[in-house]
Amino acid sequence: MSEITPEIMERIINQVIAEMNIEPCPQCGGTHTRPFSYDAANDLVSFGASRIGAVAPSCPPRYEMARWIDHTLLKPDATYEQIEKICLEAREYSFASVCINPSWVADAYKILRGSPVKVCTVIGFPLGATLPEVKAKETRLVIDQGADEVDMVINIGALKSGRLDIVEHDIRSVVRAAGRRTVKVILETCLLSDEEKVTACVLSQRAGANFVKTSTGFSKGGATVADVALMRKVVGASMGVKASGGVRSYEEACKMVEAGATRIGASASVAIVKKGESAGEGY
Amino acid sequence: MSEITPEIMERIINQVIAEMNIEPCPQCGGTHTRPFSYDAANDLVSFGASRIGAVAPSCPPRYEMARWIDHTLLKPDATYEQIEKICLEAREYSFASVCINPSWVADAYKILRGSPVKVCTVIGFPLGATLPEVKAKETRLVIDQGADEVDMVINIGALKSGRLDIVEHDIRSVVRAAGRRTVKVILETCLLSDEEKVTACVLSQRAGANFVKTSTGFSKGGATVADVALMRKVVGASMGVKASGGVRSYEEACKMVEAGATRIGASASVAIVKKGESAGEGY
Repeated sequence: MSEITPEIMERIINQVIAEMNIEPCPQCGGTHTRPFSYDAANDLVSFGASRIGAVAPSCPPRYEMARWIDHTLLKPDATYEQIEKICLEAREYSFASVCINPSWVADAYKILRGSPVKVCTVIGFPLGATLPEVKAKETRLVIDQGADEVDMVINIGALKSGRLDIVEHDIRSVVRAAGRRTVKVILETCLLSDEEKVTACVLSQRAGANFVKTSTGFSKGGATVADVALMRKVVGASMGVKASGGVRSYEEACKMVEAGATRIGASASVAIVKKGESAGEGY
Repeated sequence: MSEITPEIMERIINQVIAEMNIEPCPQCGGTHTRPFSYDAANDLVSFGASRIGAVAPSCPPRYEMARWIDHTLLKPDATYEQIEKICLEAREYSFASVCINPSWVADAYKILRGSPVKVCTVIGFPLGATLPEVKAKETRLVIDQGADEVDMVINIGALKSGRLDIVEHDIRSVVRAAGRRTVKVILETCLLSDEEKVTACVLSQRAGANFVKTSTGFSKGGATVADVALMRKVVGASMGVKASGGVRSYEEACKMVEAGATRIGASASVAIVKKGESAGEGY
């Protein structure tokens, strides 16, 4: 695939926005249709992202990168011992959260109780091809069990079939079920055209989600610098951008942050924050 | 991995059964703990499986293989046009069912109404790592929308952590939600040891499921002849066995049937039943 130049990016965004009848925000240049949220802005500031849209954000030092990272273990065959291990690592290194499958939320909540590490889980994962009511039910249940953040997968097939009302309703169902908890919307960028990526960002913002996120880690590809930059450009400063899938070193994490990411999803989190540590395998 | 000889298979099964305090059935040698079901037996007979346990089943001719096949399209980026195409192929070739993601069930039901082709969908797919209540809710909703059969994924992490009560409760939740509809339990055999495969079969049978199924098609490997034979041996004649993942030709499908499979999950279904057709790509 050819490199996205700023000109191409601008053209695609304008085209999609024109087709969807949405005015770009005069304040940030983004496309959010709900009023600009000071809470959301403060969240971004707390992650060092206040300069997004003004000057390029710079990478935090290695020891500070931990609080940008969702320490992730989503393999279906992960055992209790492995879940416990990543929770203890998250406490030790002060990662933003652990990101685990729904059936482990209650266990992770118990292990992490009293620590600042959040419990993040996944909804409709990794295909996103289930019904909105199922994603909403899953969201309510994991929050009851202690989840602070949910990363949902969009309905990719509906997006590709031009059923944008279904895509937006699906995201909104999860946002409503999540109440005040953070909702990240996984686009699975490796399966989307640039136009579809822009559309998905706009729909996520319209539906009231807090973050857009690149990848599940279970498809053909992960986060790219170009995708993160495109997503940041579309959502402006009002949402977070999470780069996930294949980020395995401090240097790669830095590139994502410089492109506009405010959160990193990684299984190689310890290797990212600790020099000389092997990245190992897995997601 | 070394070949499983009949002696090794026998030893593993006996060991697992002894540990789980279950008596093998005097009639069929299987391990079903509920009374032998004549309905289930009739279902098997209708699929040509009445001889299982007596003499090795022989492969149906190519033109008859269609009614053993769940014509499958589970890619997250499948579009409406692709779903419509496999539904029309299923009518044309008389496949047993189409197997599609939950968000397409209502569409498939509309397209297939009035035909003998069933609508099959997947639950907790493909990781199986969500909560039993979510799987039950998903089951109820897809049945409301027209699904005849549901293929659920077991909680693999719970199985590997020795939490067998969770694994069984999870399957039972789906069986109860499904009422009289067919429930197939996907073990994801490529991630399991032989002992775990046997345990998962026994738990599926105890929970009242109708089939055990090898694979999701989304993990490291698909169906093998050895796994199908092992699963058939454990469940006896009272359940179906579905071989799925990587079955791409008539010859491969035959090997699975001869090993004890009574259903085949495939995306290359047309190539299996029609000589000279390319298997194409995808799952």
